Amino acid sequence: MSRISVAQLKLNMTLSRQPFLLREKSLTTTRTGSAMLRVVLADRTGAIGGVYFDVPGHVPDSLTVGQGVEVTGRVGEFKDQLQLNIERIIPARLENPEEFLPLARRPIEEMAQEFDALCAGIENADLSRLLKTIFDDKTTYQAFTHAPAAKFYHHACVGGLLEHTLSVARLVLTACELYPELHCDLVLTVALLHDLGKIRAYDPVSFDLTGEGSLLTHLYSGAAQVERAIDALPGFGAELRLQVIHALLSHHGKLENGSPVLPMTLEAIVLHYADNLDADTRGALDHFQRSEGDGSIFTEYSSMHETKLYRRSQDSSSPAGSKQQSLL
Amino acid sequence: MSRISVAQLKLNMTLSRQPFLLREKSLTTTRTGSAMLRVVLADRTGAIGGVYFDVPGHVPDSLTVGQGVEVTGRVGEFKDQLQLNIERIIPARLENPEEFLPLARRPIEEMAQEFDALCAGIENADLSRLLKTIFDDKTTYQAFTHAPAAKFYHHACVGGLLEHTLSVARLVLTACELYPELHCDLVLTVALLHDLGKIRAYDPVSFDLTGEGSLLTHLYSGAAQVERAIDALPGFGAELRLQVIHALLSHHGKLENGSPVLPMTLEAIVLHYADNLDADTRGALDHFQRSEGDGSIFTEYSSMHETKLYRRSQDSSSPAGSKQQSLL
Amino acid sequence: MSRISVAQLKLNMTLSRQPFLLREKSLTTTRTGSAMLRVVLADRTGAIGGVYFDVPGHVPDSLTVGQGVEVTGRVGEFKDQLQLNIERIIPARLENPEEFLPLARRPIEEMAQEFDALCAGIENADLSRLLKTIFDDKTTYQAFTHAPAAKFYHHACVGGLLEHTLSVARLVLTACELYPELHCDLVLTVALLHDLGKIRAYDPVSFDLTGEGSLLTHLYSGAAQVERAIDALPGFGAELRLQVIHALLSHHGKLENGSPVLPMTLEAIVLHYADNLDADTRGALDHFQRSEGDGSIFTEYSSMHETKLYRRSQDSSSPAGSKQQSLL
Amino acid sequence: MSRISVAQLKLNMTLSRQPFLLREKSLTTTRTGSAMLRVVLADRTGAIGGVYFDVPGHVPDSLTVGQGVEVTGRVGEFKDQLQLNIERIIPARLENPEEFLPLARRPIEEMAQEFDALCAGIENADLSRLLKTIFDDKTTYQAFTHAPAAKFYHHACVGGLLEHTLSVARLVLTACELYPELHCDLVLTVALLHDLGKIRAYDPVSFDLTGEGSLLTHLYSGAAQVERAIDALPGFGAELRLQVIHALLSHHGKLENGSPVLPMTLEAIVLHYADNLDADTRGALDHFQRSEGDGSIFTEYSSMHETKLYRRSQDSSSPAGSKQQSLL
Amino acid sequence: MSRISVAQLKLNMTLSRQPFLLREKSLTTTRTGSAMLRVVLADRTGAIGGVYFDVPGHVPDSLTVGQGVEVTGRVGEFKDQLQLNIERIIPARLENPEEFLPLARRPIEEMAQEFDALCAGIENADLSRLLKTIFDDKTTYQAFTHAPAAKFYHHACVGGLLEHTLSVARLVLTACELYPELHCDLVLTVALLHDLGKIRAYDPVSFDLTGEGSLLTHLYSGAAQVERAIDALPGFGAELRLQVIHALLSHHGKLENGSPVLPMTLEAIVLHYADNLDADTRGALDHFQRSEGDGSIFTEYSSMHETKLYRRSQDSSSPAGSKQQSLL
Amino acid sequence: MSRISVAQLKLNMTLSRQPFLLREKSLTTTRTGSAMLRVVLADRTGAIGGVYFDVPGHVPDSLTVGQGVEVTGRVGEFKDQLQLNIERIIPARLENPEEFLPLARRPIEEMAQEFDALCAGIENADLSRLLKTIFDDKTTYQAFTHAPAAKFYHHACVGGLLEHTLSVARLVLTACELYPELHCDLVLTVALLHDLGKIRAYDPVSFDLTGEGSLLTHLYSGAAQVERAIDALPGFGAELRLQVIHALLSHHGKLENGSPVLPMTLEAIVLHYADNLDADTRGALDHFQRSEGDGSIFTEYSSMHETKLYRRSQDSSSPAGSKQQSLL
Repeated sequence: MSRISVAQLKLNMTLSRQPFLLREKSLTTTRTGSAMLRVVLADRTGAIGGVYFDVPGHVPDSLTVGQGVEVTGRVGEFKDQLQLNIERIIPARLENPEEFLPLARRPIEEMAQEFDALCAGIENADLSRLLKTIFDDKTTYQAFTHAPAAKFYHHACVGGLLEHTLSVARLVLTACELYPELHCDLVLTVALLHDLGKIRAYDPVSFDLTGEGSLLTHLYSGAAQVERAIDALPGFGAELRLQVIHALLSHHGKLENGSPVLPMTLEAIVLHYADNLDADTRGALDHFQRSEGDGSIFTEYSSMHETKLYRRSQDSSSPAGSKQQSLL
Repeated sequence: MSRISVAQLKLNMTLSRQPFLLREKSLTTTRTGSAMLRVVLADRTGAIGGVYFDVPGHVPDSLTVGQGVEVTGRVGEFKDQLQLNIERIIPARLENPEEFLPLARRPIEEMAQEFDALCAGIENADLSRLLKTIFDDKTTYQAFTHAPAAKFYHHACVGGLLEHTLSVARLVLTACELYPELHCDLVLTVALLHDLGKIRAYDPVSFDLTGEGSLLTHLYSGAAQVERAIDALPGFGAELRLQVIHALLSHHGKLENGSPVLPMTLEAIVLHYADNLDADTRGALDHFQRSEGDGSIFTEYSSMHETKLYRRSQDSSSPAGSKQQSLL
Repeated sequence: MSRISVAQLKLNMTLSRQPFLLREKSLTTTRTGSAMLRVVLADRTGAIGGVYFDVPGHVPDSLTVGQGVEVTGRVGEFKDQLQLNIERIIPARLENPEEFLPLARRPIEEMAQEFDALCAGIENADLSRLLKTIFDDKTTYQAFTHAPAAKFYHHACVGGLLEHTLSVARLVLTACELYPELHCDLVLTVALLHDLGKIRAYDPVSFDLTGEGSLLTHLYSGAAQVERAIDALPGFGAELRLQVIHALLSHHGKLENGSPVLPMTLEAIVLHYADNLDADTRGALDHFQRSEGDGSIFTEYSSMHETKLYRRSQDSSSPAGSKQQSLL
Repeated sequence: MSRISVAQLKLNMTLSRQPFLLREKSLTTTRTGSAMLRVVLADRTGAIGGVYFDVPGHVPDSLTVGQGVEVTGRVGEFKDQLQLNIERIIPARLENPEEFLPLARRPIEEMAQEFDALCAGIENADLSRLLKTIFDDKTTYQAFTHAPAAKFYHHACVGGLLEHTLSVARLVLTACELYPELHCDLVLTVALLHDLGKIRAYDPVSFDLTGEGSLLTHLYSGAAQVERAIDALPGFGAELRLQVIHALLSHHGKLENGSPVLPMTLEAIVLHYADNLDADTRGALDHFQRSEGDGSIFTEYSSMHETKLYRRSQDSSSPAGSKQQSLL
Repeated sequence: MSRISVAQLKLNMTLSRQPFLLREKSLTTTRTGSAMLRVVLADRTGAIGGVYFDVPGHVPDSLTVGQGVEVTGRVGEFKDQLQLNIERIIPARLENPEEFLPLARRPIEEMAQEFDALCAGIENADLSRLLKTIFDDKTTYQAFTHAPAAKFYHHACVGGLLEHTLSVARLVLTACELYPELHCDLVLTVALLHDLGKIRAYDPVSFDLTGEGSLLTHLYSGAAQVERAIDALPGFGAELRLQVIHALLSHHGKLENGSPVLPMTLEAIVLHYADNLDADTRGALDHFQRSEGDGSIFTEYSSMHETKLYRRSQDSSSPAGSKQQSLL
Repeated sequence: MSRISVAQLKLNMTLSRQPFLLREKSLTTTRTGSAMLRVVLADRTGAIGGVYFDVPGHVPDSLTVGQGVEVTGRVGEFKDQLQLNIERIIPARLENPEEFLPLARRPIEEMAQEFDALCAGIENADLSRLLKTIFDDKTTYQAFTHAPAAKFYHHACVGGLLEHTLSVARLVLTACELYPELHCDLVLTVALLHDLGKIRAYDPVSFDLTGEGSLLTHLYSGAAQVERAIDALPGFGAELRLQVIHALLSHHGKLENGSPVLPMTLEAIVLHYADNLDADTRGALDHFQRSEGDGSIFTEYSSMHETKLYRRSQDSSSPAGSKQQSLL
């Protein structure tokens, strides 16, 4: 049986040893003693819930979240959603694991080259050395270029952090043209590093906050990791070090957003707003996408934006006498 | 006696019928009956306080703030500041009034051309008509290109609003490259119009808030003026109108900052952060300039940024082993 | 079959071509391809949900929210609530449409006369002209006297805005007696106009926020509409114009409640508190009514009042030795 | 030498044993050992500062704030304000003490009658008994009818609390007409009692907060005093008691304004807004008066209103083409 | 049939006249006319829901919340929870009522002795008399030693208030050792009395807020009760009285937490933090316990702590190379 | 001339080459070209301002803040404060530098022994190693035992950080007795380390925030330093590391107080309140001391406590009939 993607699943379809990534699992033991396993199975095209009634005792422990499984069963329906009724589920090695996670819009390869070029363009010796120290580490580079930028489903994707980082970098470069007083190498460096902590704060598969992400925050983790990298660079400018770490710590802009200090330098101010502009705009785009096709002009409430959003009708730029009705 | 600029004044200098712009005046009648007139006199190079003891009764009423005066007297000192001891002050017509107000960094002419080019580049017919309707009005155009962007002294200058508007426009154009979903003509139009209300909200000479600026806010005034302009354009898209006015009303980003509604469209979100980025960065640059030369690493508290700011030492980008001391 | 009102419906009743107002509709297409139409049907006496299983494809599009329908089917039950199981639903012209919307407590006619008398009592020439200009427009007058004052179900009713306006007017008139310094014509005028924007901000049938209501707010819409009316009045006092618009803009009292400016005049202060007093008191009365009959002393949490409310027992003013128990 | 009021004092006038009320005193011992006594002296027409250089050691202790003094000296000037240079100051019994404190606008006698009539109109037996118990106490009645309503100088006056109470009562009576559901006797009773705690919270002469006012707040003190009065009334309704105390405790409307509980009853809601309406409106009137005559359209910032206030020009209600200038 | 505790109930078990405490009851009359009674039944070991379909009309009124019942029926299941299907329920006198409520960890007897010892140790005559006056009242003492400290289920228990009080007392005694400036008798007295108002604010059986608890708050009720006790003590120090009541009123530390005044004395500051330390720590322990056994490292969101909490794994203090995985 | 301490200075005293610590210096160049040097000179007994008119150009640069000077001049007076009129000031080596800074109440030696004993008592191997690694470093230990705990004058003293740390440790030990669930070694360790970052954040002489203190905050600096120490300890428990760093980062308790994360563990919660209890109580004691002797019952507003504080009169615990007056 050839591989069937999540997007291809249809009601009543029968599956035999189909591979999926195990995103989540939970075991419910009812008080009557019978056990039920709930799972979320996924590949790049989407995710589907599954349920295994009267699951044998050894099964749940044999499965590891973030690894592959092979599933046998039938596609049913629950609360108007497709759901897999599982008859058998076993651990399995995924041949092409990357096919089982959602991907960023742009190819990672292409984004990574753009990122490398930005790093290479830094002329300040200390900052250049700093970026090298951090990203020449293969593990870090691999994690950084594949990490998600945030935990919510549609927003999270492999390469999401890289995509966000490049947008912020693009915005601070425009700022460099506008304000000659900006230390351009500095603001670009902190743009490239500002969310480094997310590679420790989010699980690369489930996109959940890790223990470190919850207890220490990505803001602290990233700043501390960068400071350790600076420690290893003899002669790194003491004042420059403070400015780098300060911009990383303050980039959320407000204490109530989790920055322990407000932006006090030009570069920290610019980074903060560039980060917000990209995060809120992409957040809005993702929010539109999530609620696409329900036909109403306004979306559901977006907790990120603290309001519902307005979805422009397709042809809103043309003269609109007839459209007035629908709005007023 | 040839004209002496404010920057050229020195202690004990004697002035004879020197022209200045009258920025402020106030009359103090002491309880003993003697009257003292305090004034602020200015030209493009700066401002100086003046005091006229036992001023004759008819003098104060003869002078109008925002118009020229000729002053005879002597440069004295008060609380470590130069101060004019006035012997005579009379109303006078300034020959080149523009020489008596601070100017933006870039020539207005040059900025105006850039602004015109941006307007001319709008392809959407409705938005193009809208900008024409508003800026083809000579009075509005003149006011807009010469208005200050805010009321504080160093920040305020002739052309300040135009300079700010161009920076915001530049930032939203970068956003247009990043997010193809943006309605580029729309976001550029609202960038160009977002602070239009300031031409009614600030006095063009004293840079004080006007009655309308205080009671209605520039946010409302601008939106209402734009809406009136739309009223005059038959067939203007109904939905587009809502989006234009919405972006103007919401560009302060939060209710507590005076926007009656939060940004609900992509364009409103982008405009908000672009506006904040430029305002806070320029505000920081102006704040640095105001406190220049006091030798300390941190500035005074900046109420705009809710923190003191950090002033980089000149050579912070070079290796800095020896500098650690000065900081720690 | 004679008309049966919503209040008269009983379990298992059979309906044949009964007329209702269509309040809401939504189509759920299950992933198995079958379609289900959900509707809310209403008349003056209440509202009831309906469901049409396997609805034919052309039906949903043939129906328009805010217009009449004729329904054939049977009264069933779902989650302890009556629900119509629809067999047929077709668009229909309602003969007496006003019988299908909830009504204010007092007759609209009577309230409109009271409103007219208040307008007629304004002696200030400018303000009198202003009210005339606005309310002599038949469409505006009709919309104003029939609009709801807010969107929630029990509170919303035809004539609700008028009822609220009259209460606020009554309270500011008392204030006029207390504070001779108040400009009585001014404060009364802004009381009468303060929620004018709601005729554009709420849909007159569904009572939902319109696009304009969400994107521009009733506060802005009302102020801008009044300002346009002033534009049309040659010689209207410039200072008076500012005071009128200021009171409209500031009547929510705080930036975080959506006013772009705080009340700065006596009249704006009085209007703000009079508006709050009536809104919160009526809101409490409506909240009591919604949760009537559940027997407990405290209501559910009221998000408007940010607390649950306390419902006095009927006879609390009599000596109450025996009642202590129920409370303590 | 006949009595000279504060308002009659002029520069260089010589005083001999003139009577004043001692409002404040403070002794500054310079480090060189010389002592300087500063005092504030007042009568109904105003207050003036005084300074006694090298004051003999026994003098300061002989004087009691809130009692009369006789002063010999000369009227001088300090920082543009008249100031008494004292040569001698001794304690003295004031013959007509009431002439030495500022008075409410309306005669206390007249207001007290109005207050008595309101009390007498309460029909509910419990509430009527409660008001009697409290106000039949001569000391309480005398304190209540003469107390100030707040501590700031211009606002504070003998009878101020009574004046405020009557305004609030007037407003709640209007509410009784608007909302038949209001328990009218209850809302009127709590209006009459709502600031009773101020007779313990403010010093009747200096108008300063007392120790009890600072440590317990007038809100608590008043509620506790009323509850003790209820204790003394056998058979007082248990539920009514809760409602009375609740309205007193919640009348500041928000926790951050010092109410330990939010208004949860109709009567508490109405009382809260009636109290705010009168306090803010009177506060604005007093604020206008304090800054009268400085000629500008806007007042100084009012911390009570969190904004500067706008002072209408005298003739703003007449057609105003020519006035536009002064504002715009 | 011998008594079966809630903890012993199993699916399909049949009960015959088993005694329970009636915690809650509610009657749902469906619109079809049939009646359903829902109850919560409890004993010291836990609580279980019950449902009585088609309950005869006289039954619901025959039952009183907070009293005993005898139940006949069968243990079923609803939404994965055990639930009693009731066939018969009658009022009954509980022989050992204390067996039907959850108990504090430590024996009440033991805690009461500790409390008595603390009272006995107060040397200040006034404060000692005050504690005696209050706690010599048998009813108060009984209520105080058995009241819950808060309303949520797991936290609430008989003796909970006493347990909390002793912890706070323990903490302030440590503070007395650290700060000799503390008035030790005073801070201990207010620690012992700080939540006295809870005996009126919480129902001793349902642990719900009473009418007085909701309308007046335990903070006010306690302070007012203590003040009445002081009234009965001739010669009690006036300043001491203010300090006692002040500490009680301010112990929530912030206006937004319901204290009408901020802590202004050393003793009030210490009491506030000692109270918070114990409440938040116990609240966390209870929160852990409620969500025990779901296997995840973080708990559900705790509204008390405004975050989810982190549950240490059992052996976290041992070297943890292998555990890193589970976290990172 | 033998050394004269600051406390011994008297008006008109003449000084010849007296040694002081230079706390602050600032040079004012008037626009007339003359230069004036202002300094603050200090020793353990206090601080005094000095002014050097027409200071020779080379002098200011020859002096270093935080080092010794020798001063010749005369004690004058300015604004009622003693002030040194300097005739000559030269850099000088202080023989016993420790005599020139304010000291903590308890001897540092004694406190350090107590601190060492607490460290030695930690049984958990990882935590014990961690404390050793950090405090075996002589420079760190010396800095830690001598650092101030905060920047304000009266509060800051040599040993202040140590004193604060011991108090917090004392409070968490009490908590360990109350809550057996606490990981006692962990909570004690984080108590000992919680303000470690202050040794980098405050200048040890001027007590000013350093560049690092302002830009990175002591909270971040401390956590990062501890994490680096953990890095150097092979096999340190991964989960324990998270808990240690988490408690350090969260100990300010709220995002708006600068913690990037809220306390999520028992130990973090206890640490937070113990820290607050000691800081606020000591802050109050210092505030009382600063305003001692002005005779009023209430202090000036304390920005730390957001209120003025109440100062108990000396004998408030005795029966107080006569004292009522002074308060009421």
